[in-house]
Amino acid sequence: MEKKHIVLSGDRPTGPLHLGHYVGTLKQRVQLQQQYQLYVLLADLQALTDNVENPAKVRKHILEVALDYLAVGIDPEKTTIFIQSMIPEIAELSVFYLNLVTVNRLQRNPTVKEEIKQKGLEESITAGFLTYPVHQASDITIVKATLVPVGADQLPMIEQTNEIVRAFNRIYKTELFPEVQAFVPEVGRLPGIDGTAKMSKSLGNAIFLSDAPDIVAQKVMKMYTDPDHVHVKDPGKVEGNVVFTYLDIFDPCKSEIAQLKEQYRHGGLGDVLLKKRLIEVLNTFLDPIRTKRGEWAQDPQAVMSIVLQGTERAREVAEITMKSVRAALGLVYT
Amino acid sequence: MEKKHIVLSGDRPTGPLHLGHYVGTLKQRVQLQQQYQLYVLLADLQALTDNVENPAKVRKHILEVALDYLAVGIDPEKTTIFIQSMIPEIAELSVFYLNLVTVNRLQRNPTVKEEIKQKGLEESITAGFLTYPVHQASDITIVKATLVPVGADQLPMIEQTNEIVRAFNRIYKTELFPEVQAFVPEVGRLPGIDGTAKMSKSLGNAIFLSDAPDIVAQKVMKMYTDPDHVHVKDPGKVEGNVVFTYLDIFDPCKSEIAQLKEQYRHGGLGDVLLKKRLIEVLNTFLDPIRTKRGEWAQDPQAVMSIVLQGTERAREVAEITMKSVRAALGLVYT
Repeated sequence: MEKKHIVLSGDRPTGPLHLGHYVGTLKQRVQLQQQYQLYVLLADLQALTDNVENPAKVRKHILEVALDYLAVGIDPEKTTIFIQSMIPEIAELSVFYLNLVTVNRLQRNPTVKEEIKQKGLEESITAGFLTYPVHQASDITIVKATLVPVGADQLPMIEQTNEIVRAFNRIYKTELFPEVQAFVPEVGRLPGIDGTAKMSKSLGNAIFLSDAPDIVAQKVMKMYTDPDHVHVKDPGKVEGNVVFTYLDIFDPCKSEIAQLKEQYRHGGLGDVLLKKRLIEVLNTFLDPIRTKRGEWAQDPQAVMSIVLQGTERAREVAEITMKSVRAALGLVYT
Repeated sequence: MEKKHIVLSGDRPTGPLHLGHYVGTLKQRVQLQQQYQLYVLLADLQALTDNVENPAKVRKHILEVALDYLAVGIDPEKTTIFIQSMIPEIAELSVFYLNLVTVNRLQRNPTVKEEIKQKGLEESITAGFLTYPVHQASDITIVKATLVPVGADQLPMIEQTNEIVRAFNRIYKTELFPEVQAFVPEVGRLPGIDGTAKMSKSLGNAIFLSDAPDIVAQKVMKMYTDPDHVHVKDPGKVEGNVVFTYLDIFDPCKSEIAQLKEQYRHGGLGDVLLKKRLIEVLNTFLDPIRTKRGEWAQDPQAVMSIVLQGTERAREVAEITMKSVRAALGLVYT
């Protein structure tokens, strides 16, 4: 029998979650929680690494993101939602891990390099930003996760974690930490409505799970299609056409989509018609999520109480892990 | 009336303490504890930064160093001796501080640069080593210390702490952390018995507080004097002559030392005679320390109990500090 996985996933609470999060990770979490023990981390400390001057934003989005979780069907009976900054053991474990990683290695991490480039941090990169893969290794291993759902671009983070796990186990002659498997979902990244590769709040190209129907409509109407498809009668491109990418993912009627693609390629199908269909499809998809979100939003205390209970459960596990870490090093004084 | 200082001092528990520690810091602590609130940190986590593969050495020296403290007169009724790894709040505070320091800044820290050079770490410097000035800022500020006794070579560490304190107070619009003053003792570094600038266990040139009288004698007999002072009748150099440096510090009879220097300069005073005097002086100085150390060593449990009680007291202070930190950032969830 296969060993039951412990799964860790999570988000930086810096904004409401969007369709990109749904496709890339939330959907998988809802499935994974049926089968495995799922932990979902509200990574407020990681969010601070590039929001140093704005902790209020982070604080506020703890509730917002938790609402998104409950809205999409993450089930607090099955899943442990917890707040990073309330688990001191994560910080403690990082102190041990920081000795197992060279600065050179961190500077070579492709994910960190890419994010430094994106955020224009080259000159002013902080120690917190450089070392966050180490803190992420603590997030993962403090609950002894064995499976972590990630996008393909985050694979180097998992490799970094496994290097630390192997170094720790080797140096301290222990099997305390299991290696971690990445779980890369089949459907890749959802593009932004502007056609850029990644949907992201900071790029301003996201449709949020909490967007009202008319906002969804407005955003879809602005969506990138085929810039050469000027008149309805012109033939249009389906590849790279964001409307079709979204229909492929969210429209349940695959045969109709195949026909529409055919027609679009030949000419005679207008963008507006297609977009109206997508608005319909997305709002049908989002309706139950918005409803559930609205219900929970009536009782923010109940939501925070779920998160705090989860945090307490995660803390118990974290305490046991740190106790084992101290024992492995022989740093026990009582 | 001057505000009562809170003083933080400490040691990496990687070996027994020696005369260099006494001159450079222990003596001052014994005085400072009369006047101020003194915390003494057993920095086991910092010791791990370059003893990753040898936590047992660190563990063992917690007791040894605590014995040295009690032997020289650090008074647990007045002073709080505590173990770094048992205060999770230090690690937690570091996570916030890491965002306030750039990697460039850490790489320019003169103390870190010098230590990297000394330890030959250029290529393989770990994240733990590079970031330890940040963790040191946490050590200092977690108890809100305002005075830290350091050697002149450690002044950049205090400056790094103050930069972090200023950044924190400015960004989070608070006066939570006071700036820290360095306390540089008048008597500088004690040279090693080989004449190198620094007495250090790893350089093999130290006289330990716990050395037996005959070991002290052997070490003094090997001490560096004036290599050109071959015959008793030859004139000798006093400057850079380690025996005189030690006599200046430890011999209570200053007028006799002045005469001996005069005689040595003119010629007619042998090294052996001088060294015998120094052996006498050092053993007279060390006798009560060794006796007290021996008494405490009979009851290691009592010593550990003192350290654990101190740790508990420090932890209470650390908890209050971290609570204020969370409040300053608004990261409070309960």
